[in-house]
Amino acid sequence: MGKTNFSFVKEGIDLYSKRLKHYIKFNIFELPDIKGVKNMSAEVLKYKEGEQFIKKISADAKVILLDENGKQLNSRVFAKEIEKNMIQSVKELVFVVGGAYGFSETMYKRANSKFSLSSMTFSHQIIRLIFAEQLYRAFSIINNEPYHND
Amino acid sequence: MGKTNFSFVKEGIDLYSKRLKHYIKFNIFELPDIKGVKNMSAEVLKYKEGEQFIKKISADAKVILLDENGKQLNSRVFAKEIEKNMIQSVKELVFVVGGAYGFSETMYKRANSKFSLSSMTFSHQIIRLIFAEQLYRAFSIINNEPYHND
Repeated sequence: MGKTNFSFVKEGIDLYSKRLKHYIKFNIFELPDIKGVKNMSAEVLKYKEGEQFIKKISADAKVILLDENGKQLNSRVFAKEIEKNMIQSVKELVFVVGGAYGFSETMYKRANSKFSLSSMTFSHQIIRLIFAEQLYRAFSIINNEPYHND
Repeated sequence: MGKTNFSFVKEGIDLYSKRLKHYIKFNIFELPDIKGVKNMSAEVLKYKEGEQFIKKISADAKVILLDENGKQLNSRVFAKEIEKNMIQSVKELVFVVGGAYGFSETMYKRANSKFSLSSMTFSHQIIRLIFAEQLYRAFSIINNEPYHND
């Protein structure tokens, strides 16, 4: 949700995107920031963000939210989950990073599952970067490459 | 431990370092990479890294390891812990990011506590960046600034 503001976040995401593309078709979509946020409650903002998400996501895509209330996985279990989806021939797996206030009810209903990167709160800018690295790590694990040390 | 290789990590750390310095005296020290790693076991490498750390850290500094076996905190609890140290007039608080294989026994003995950023494994490069943001977040919480949303 929203533009990537920091150039260092963009650079980092680019690095891991490039690496990821050796393994799989991978795309990042940034939805435009909602306008008129200043006079908007967090609830209304989340609702509007949710509407944008739903419009963007294909009807048959499997949707996973990066959500602080989701379960926490370690990197190997996360890789296993991705692998399971590949074995089950899931065509499109969509990971969603929300806005500053998280997700609307519509988004929770649309989602197939949710997971949490950490008990700590990270900026939703930095989460994109962390997640890109984690996704690359997952594929390096699936492909038995030496990137990951336990 | 070791140089920061990625320019985007450097840039990100610089951003949060600058912000942190509005609140507190903050410094980052990078220890030189150990030479001859190729023919070295992980144990010997960790031992050598540990020796470098111990030499660098002041005898009366309080040392906290960023370690996957440490307890996981949320951002508010982490901020509380920092605040506690300030109230107790701890002069120097040292957070240590280890090398690729973690810490030696010497380091665990020297440490006052340890905590974990996530159940997931992040690259020890990216941990520096995540941690810098988290430390900045902690001070924004301590000072009641609007940066952090629960």
